[in-house]
Parts: sequence; C-alpha cells; structure tokens
Amino acid sequence: MTRNTPEKTTEKTPVTLLGLGAMGTALARAWLAAGHPLTVWNRTPARAGALAAEGARTAATAAEAVAANRLVVVCLLDDASVEETLAGVDLTGRDLVNLTTGTPEQARTRAAWARARGARYLDGGIMAVPPMVGVPEAGGYVFYSGDRELFERHREALAVPVGTTYVGEDAGFAALHDVALLSAMYGMFAGAAHAFALIRREDIDPVSFAPLLADWLVAMAPSVHRTADQLRSGDYTEGVVSHLAMQVAGTPTFLATAEGQGVSAELLSPYFALMRRRLAEGDGAEDLTGVVDLLAR
Amino acid sequence: MTRNTPEKTTEKTPVTLLGLGAMGTALARAWLAAGHPLTVWNRTPARAGALAAEGARTAATAAEAVAANRLVVVCLLDDASVEETLAGVDLTGRDLVNLTTGTPEQARTRAAWARARGARYLDGGIMAVPPMVGVPEAGGYVFYSGDRELFERHREALAVPVGTTYVGEDAGFAALHDVALLSAMYGMFAGAAHAFALIRREDIDPVSFAPLLADWLVAMAPSVHRTADQLRSGDYTEGVVSHLAMQVAGTPTFLATAEGQGVSAELLSPYFALMRRRLAEGDGAEDLTGVVDLLAR
Repeated sequence: MTRNTPEKTTEKTPVTLLGLGAMGTALARAWLAAGHPLTVWNRTPARAGALAAEGARTAATAAEAVAANRLVVVCLLDDASVEETLAGVDLTGRDLVNLTTGTPEQARTRAAWARARGARYLDGGIMAVPPMVGVPEAGGYVFYSGDRELFERHREALAVPVGTTYVGEDAGFAALHDVALLSAMYGMFAGAAHAFALIRREDIDPVSFAPLLADWLVAMAPSVHRTADQLRSGDYTEGVVSHLAMQVAGTPTFLATAEGQGVSAELLSPYFALMRRRLAEGDGAEDLTGVVDLLAR
Repeated sequence: MTRNTPEKTTEKTPVTLLGLGAMGTALARAWLAAGHPLTVWNRTPARAGALAAEGARTAATAAEAVAANRLVVVCLLDDASVEETLAGVDLTGRDLVNLTTGTPEQARTRAAWARARGARYLDGGIMAVPPMVGVPEAGGYVFYSGDRELFERHREALAVPVGTTYVGEDAGFAALHDVALLSAMYGMFAGAAHAFALIRREDIDPVSFAPLLADWLVAMAPSVHRTADQLRSGDYTEGVVSHLAMQVAGTPTFLATAEGQGVSAELLSPYFALMRRRLAEGDGAEDLTGVVDLLAR
C-alpha cells in the first residue's frame, strides 16, 4: 500500500464501540462512512448484525471488542450498564471514552474506576439527537472532559460523528455542561408549553403563532450573556434593562391572564415566587440574576 | 408651502400621547425625530417639559391632549390609570390606541368602554424595551389587535417607533400574544437560572459558559414549530425526535445533578412532574406536547 492510495482506510484510527442503541448505531454509521475500522458489540446482537453488513466487525463479547482497539467508545443505557458491561474486562492501556448519559458525580467515579484499571478516561455529553449525527450542518456536538491527552490524540476520530467541545480536565464537567444546557432547554419548553396553553381556547392557529414564539425566544436567548457578566462581576444592576421591581410589578398580569385563559400557572409561578423573594430581600434595581443565588441550597 | 418641500412635517399624522414613563418618552422621541406633530401629557409635568424643548406640544390636561388630535396613544402604568385618566374626557371620534400593559380581558373591556364613548379602539402589546424604540435594527415591535380600519389608517405613524404586527379583531389578542411570548421567555430565563446555578460552585467561568447556553437555546427554540404542528394535527407523535418515555427516563439524571451541585430543582420539577403525569396517562411514543393539554384547568 502506497501513501498516496486514497482509500488507505487502515490509517484511520480503529474504533471499538460498545452499545448500539439509536445513538450508538448513528455513531457507528458515521465512523463507517468515514472509513474508520469499527468493532462493535451490543448486548442484544441483532443490531450488530445489521452493521456487520455495512462493514463493521462484530465482537462476541465486550471483552473481545475492548481487546480489539485502543480507542474504546461506550454508549450504553446508563452508568450501571457501563459498570456491568465492563466488569472483569481488561482495560489496561485502553483509551476509554464514555458517552453514556449520567451525572457529573457518576463521571468522576467512572474516571477514577477506569484509571485504577489502567485506562485513560474521557467523558462525553452528547448535545445532539441521532438524526443530527453525521450531519455536520445540523450543529450537534459532544462536550468532552477528562484526560486532555486522550482527547487530543483522538480528536479527529471523535470529531467524525459530531463536533467536539472540550470543557476541562474534571471528568464531571462534560456531564455538568450537558445537564445544564438541557435543563435550560426544559425551562424554555415549559415556558413554550404555557404559551401554547394560553392561546389554546382562542381562534389562534398555533402554526401561525409558532414563528412569533420562536423568533422571540431566539431574540431573548442572548440575554444570558448579561446574566453571565453580572454573575462574574457580582453587580446584578450592571447593564440592567428591565429591573426586578418593574418585572415583579408585571407578574400579576401574567397570572391573571393564565387564570382568564383557564391555564394553570404551575410552570411559571415558581420563578415568579423567586423573583418576589429576591425583591423582598434585596434591591429592586437589580436584574433577575439574583434568582440564581436563591437556587443554591 | 409646496408639495416638494422636504420638511413638510405637517403632512405627517399628528399624534397625542398620554403617559411619559420610560416607554412613553422613548415613543415620543421617535415620533418627534420622524417629524410627527406631537402633543403630550403626563400626570407629573416634568417629563413633558423636557420633551417640549425637543418640539412637543404639552397639554395641561388629558382632555386638552385628547382634543388636540384624532390619533390618541395611551401608554400608562396600568389599566386602572387609563380609566382614571380618561374619566370624563370626550373621546368622540377619537382613534384610541392603548399600549398600556394589561390582560386580554382588560383590553376587551377597555375596547367596549371606548366604543361606548364614541371612539375606535386598538390595543397594543409592546415587544420591546425602551432602548429598542426608534432603533429598527433592534427588532422590537408591537402586537396590535382590535379595530382593523384604525390600524390600517394609522399604520405608518404607528410603525415609526417600532414595527407592527396585527393579530386580529379581538381586542384581547394583542395582550394575549404579548403575555404568551413573555411567559415563554420567563420559562427560558428560569431554565437559564437553573443552568447557571448548576455551574456556580465549579471552576467554570459563566462568561465562557454563556455562549454555549445561548447557542443551545437558539438551536432548540425552533422545536416550537413541531409542537405547533402537533397541536394543530392532534397527533403528538408526529415528527417526534426524543419521545416522552425516553425523556422521562432521563429526568432522574437532571434531578440527581441538581442535588449533587447543591441546587434546588424547584424551577424544573413542575415540568418534569407534568411529563411523568402525561406518560402515566398516555402514550410514551409521544413528544412533550401533551404537557400543553395538562395545563388546561
């Protein structure tokens, strides 16, 4: 084989992948499409069979799959599945990349567990759904944290299915970033659900309303930069546009509108309650940032 | 005066504006800058004096201001202030545009009240903060609803300070759209507050975290289009990406992460509770849209 052969796929980092759920299967297809030699294992072998037809090597056991390659990517149901699947498997010298969803604490524990077994450890939090994998313009990416050398060594292979964002040596940081962003998203979804509920009884087409809602949320999202500046400086009045006292004064209109439309305010009222608490305790000229402080137990 | 005189400002619709708070003052300046003859009135006269120096006519009473022009814009503290300010004032033949923040019910009541007094009525909900007024690239706008002829007649004058979006003859619809979008925004802010609280104890710079958060929220906001499609069709499995059962299965990770970071989950748990309730009552293959139904009392 000469260095100029365009199809020199053997020079691409070989990857072992444990776990072929919807996400694992999407990752596998992206690596295969990019010409990475791929060894796969799944608890139930049917999905591995489908990938074999597309060029993947299938391993009969997790141990065999791990033995096949230095770079071992794990994408299982949960942290308990990782422990169970890798129990008794020799991890010596492996570069273990754990994309299994979990808490920061689970990631930190898993990192120590992997190091004690002779492996390097990188944790990942996937900011994408399976249809976004292998579609660069979809903008999906994975937060990575943990062993920086491992990340640098395998950066290219890791970047094949979706983009990569390294967020620190603390193995828990990827999961923390993942959970933080998804938590914020659920807040946005809760707000959107309340908005749709408000118009539900009226002769307003939700499909005409949606662009107004989407544009507004997109326009307001950058306000998190101001929140961040205020959290860093500690001055919550910095650059304030609508101050806390004014916003609290507006909340009865929101609650009365929900009441008038026959909508429970249960998704909004906890935030309004914290706004009122902060106002009672502090400075009405502040922004809404003080709510962040009230969430700390 | 010839028709070609460029400064023929007298051809621009004269406007009366009642209420010179931060928003009213910003509106006044935008109309003055565009050459609209402007008559202003404010309960406390100091602010009117400042605008007089910039070319506004000041009226000694609300009645005098209303008598001055057909187009009367009201931007007061609340609905009670509107009623109080206009008590006993002759509104016959006036085109009353009420930008005072209120509920849909207040707007509908005010519309009937204005019509009974011989005025046409248009209600407005301002989707902008004062610094966005007169700055077209800031993207602010006003939802208008109510008398369509009034809106069409004064469309140009109304579009001077910020853009206009007419949402229907029902005088309550402007307020309803306004409240719905701002409610969704508060949901997003609540989610963002939770996210910032999660990273608070860690060595993570909020200013580095903010762009990740903003980009993620912007990327996820368009999912409201899918919600709208599902609400219209009634099929909540249409185009689903992460189904309800899978998302509910993920919630313990979110709650455990909050617990581990010392953060109260009070802003997230009501939404998670509704997700669980919908799953218990219905179909796990659905999207999250069923939560909208649960909010109806």
